[in-house]
Amino acid sequence: MPLSSKHLLGLEGVSKKEIELIFKTADIFKEVLERPIKRVPTLTGKTVVNLFYESSTRTRISFELAERRLSADIVSFSASTSSTSKGETLKDTARNIEAMKIDIVVIRHSAPGAPLFLSKILNSSIINAGDGAHEHPTQALLDMYSLREKFGKLEGLKVLIVGDISHSRVALSNIYGMTTMGIDVSVCGPATLIPRELDKLGVKIFYNLDEAIKHKNVIMALRIQLERQKVGLFPSTREYYNYFGITKERLKSAKKDVVIMHPGPINRGIELDSDIADSKYSIILEQVANGVAIRMAILYLLSGVESSLKV
Amino acid sequence: MPLSSKHLLGLEGVSKKEIELIFKTADIFKEVLERPIKRVPTLTGKTVVNLFYESSTRTRISFELAERRLSADIVSFSASTSSTSKGETLKDTARNIEAMKIDIVVIRHSAPGAPLFLSKILNSSIINAGDGAHEHPTQALLDMYSLREKFGKLEGLKVLIVGDISHSRVALSNIYGMTTMGIDVSVCGPATLIPRELDKLGVKIFYNLDEAIKHKNVIMALRIQLERQKVGLFPSTREYYNYFGITKERLKSAKKDVVIMHPGPINRGIELDSDIADSKYSIILEQVANGVAIRMAILYLLSGVESSLKV
Amino acid sequence: MPLSSKHLLGLEGVSKKEIELIFKTADIFKEVLERPIKRVPTLTGKTVVNLFYESSTRTRISFELAERRLSADIVSFSASTSSTSKGETLKDTARNIEAMKIDIVVIRHSAPGAPLFLSKILNSSIINAGDGAHEHPTQALLDMYSLREKFGKLEGLKVLIVGDISHSRVALSNIYGMTTMGIDVSVCGPATLIPRELDKLGVKIFYNLDEAIKHKNVIMALRIQLERQKVGLFPSTREYYNYFGITKERLKSAKKDVVIMHPGPINRGIELDSDIADSKYSIILEQVANGVAIRMAILYLLSGVESSLKV
Repeated sequence: MPLSSKHLLGLEGVSKKEIELIFKTADIFKEVLERPIKRVPTLTGKTVVNLFYESSTRTRISFELAERRLSADIVSFSASTSSTSKGETLKDTARNIEAMKIDIVVIRHSAPGAPLFLSKILNSSIINAGDGAHEHPTQALLDMYSLREKFGKLEGLKVLIVGDISHSRVALSNIYGMTTMGIDVSVCGPATLIPRELDKLGVKIFYNLDEAIKHKNVIMALRIQLERQKVGLFPSTREYYNYFGITKERLKSAKKDVVIMHPGPINRGIELDSDIADSKYSIILEQVANGVAIRMAILYLLSGVESSLKV
Repeated sequence: MPLSSKHLLGLEGVSKKEIELIFKTADIFKEVLERPIKRVPTLTGKTVVNLFYESSTRTRISFELAERRLSADIVSFSASTSSTSKGETLKDTARNIEAMKIDIVVIRHSAPGAPLFLSKILNSSIINAGDGAHEHPTQALLDMYSLREKFGKLEGLKVLIVGDISHSRVALSNIYGMTTMGIDVSVCGPATLIPRELDKLGVKIFYNLDEAIKHKNVIMALRIQLERQKVGLFPSTREYYNYFGITKERLKSAKKDVVIMHPGPINRGIELDSDIADSKYSIILEQVANGVAIRMAILYLLSGVESSLKV
Repeated sequence: MPLSSKHLLGLEGVSKKEIELIFKTADIFKEVLERPIKRVPTLTGKTVVNLFYESSTRTRISFELAERRLSADIVSFSASTSSTSKGETLKDTARNIEAMKIDIVVIRHSAPGAPLFLSKILNSSIINAGDGAHEHPTQALLDMYSLREKFGKLEGLKVLIVGDISHSRVALSNIYGMTTMGIDVSVCGPATLIPRELDKLGVKIFYNLDEAIKHKNVIMALRIQLERQKVGLFPSTREYYNYFGITKERLKSAKKDVVIMHPGPINRGIELDSDIADSKYSIILEQVANGVAIRMAILYLLSGVESSLKV
């Protein structure tokens, strides 16, 4: 097994060497994705089950494309059409599906720890595709992979993450992964949305965006979860935009070659001005493109296929 | 590129020569569909994304079967399970999916012009699977293909389209395609449901079905969109049936070998008597069968696969 | 055709010899499922359509995995995203889908007899994946196959089925199949939930579980359909558990090597104590595992593939 675990539950505890192996493997698959025929037989006869208990477009499609292009057999289901409506526990659902001889489970769930729970009761490899406000490791890997592609290396980069840090699995996975890779990570957002203990993870905390933005190589805007904003953790989206929106005006105090990222889907005019999202600063679509290569790499590395990479 | 456009957005402006090429290509795939093994490797490694923003059985299944039988990699999603519920724009959804290296997008959307919009922002080929009350070009192609099969040629045929002409994308695509192919097209329906400008497209307008039906080779009944009938564009379905329903009685004034078509799903006893739908006059199931061959032809012709047809 | 019918509508009338052929075919596929590459080319180019008009996790996934591992082309749809919401009849939906050149239809429907109805209007092979309170033949086949695996033979086994016998398609299919195979079948449940005519099928009826349980080799607990319990056929789930729940205490009066089965999904603490479900007595996960092999056998035997089994 080339990685120390047969699961990818999060980036907490994943070593620099392992992340570099994932990136090198993704390089190979990225080349495959440039070919006219984008399919390789690597996972022929392996079965991957996608369990999506939360709605998703890009992550689900990205995983499915990665699985198909590796020639895996795929079964997908979303919670709304499944027996969960009959009251079955996650444990029973998962053990039953595994009894059908599957190899890998990709799970998205609103409960933090759901992938960890599955890893303890199943023999299959588990890939976390987002668990509540905990981790979203493939997103952070594709983010870092996109920065490595842009800058040539990660060590020493200064990255600012802006938004609702407390509830963001994207932020947490990136904080674990980026600090491991030697990136200098700062966060900025409303005081109500930043956990104080973050400094223990080696992260600098800012509450003023104009100040935070200076000297940074990268600004990653997080999605404001409008659908979860019932509690009112900030006064209004207008207010949020005024203090934390990434605008042309604001970027004047940033480095000339600053890079803008966003995990999507974007709320244009809230987290980012629309023209910034589509500008030369933005690598948002590169992030999406790299997502498929990163997920192919993870699926391959966890599959236990022992032969040399047949691509 | 054998067709003048890499997209199929509608039949407006598509030439007779192009439509004949599509039919000849469909002939080849129709033969494939008669084989015990109905799969050819033509689109191996190409990725097709089906974006269905309106519910559909037959069109979605027909496209998916066409794609599978061409060995394409397929990703499908319907609006209800996707990020559109998170407020993402069609533009962002589409550009994100394209960033994952896809080749063809098949889209059904309630907004007229949605496929045209996509064709302007994406590099992929776009196939319109129905956009609001605008066009549904693959349906019209399969309708004409079925008539070509039945009559040997299209030129000079007299076709009557009956129903809600104003809101029918099937009618509009057929009017464009059929007039191009030299078919003599008439329409008949309630005065509230026929746009007056149709005569500029070379279409004859009737308000009395018994009169309209005479000397026609083909009667195409359109579906009454019961689910859209809140506005009350005609008094009742009973009233509609009395004036515009295709009945045995009414067919007495038609030609002996008249052909009955319907794009489905049928409201039996409203647009058509149930026994007419199942009679020797009807080619409704042939339409469905030909749909797969036509869609295989379109997918192949737009795919940019340059080698000679490997079937 | 190795089976006397090209459909599998139920186990009523299926002979012992046919069931044995299904089991022997499943043995071959079970071996395939132990291989690292679990895919065989047996149904390449054949098209299977899964029509699920009721929600399902395990049965749908089990069929889809069986179809994929036989290399069939698959189209699946569930009622909620289809034209049935436009009021189309099952007959029209089915005939339209068949017009697209398909080979096998797998259908789950709330109406008893829906698969029989399809078998009369379609040329495809029909497989019943559960029709109302009528039959669920593949479930009963996998149940018996699991017992054959456990005990080496079926003849002479004493099986007790516990629960809502009246509304259970699992019970009825097992009663037909098991009595054919020479199994001694008893049932036990609330008097309101057991049809009196069952004794005509050669089934013993018990109302007291402690008495029923004695000398049985197998106890099959049925799922209580909580979602259908509006009518109140028993007072409460607590009451049900007290009289008919399978508990450690209760198993003291059973044979030492009694086998516990359940078709899933389990309501833990109602039909079964949670620790019984996970105990050495339980073969619940073996049932699930065998489901894929049984369904591969059925798909193969009904497919009309005439060559010798290419696995």
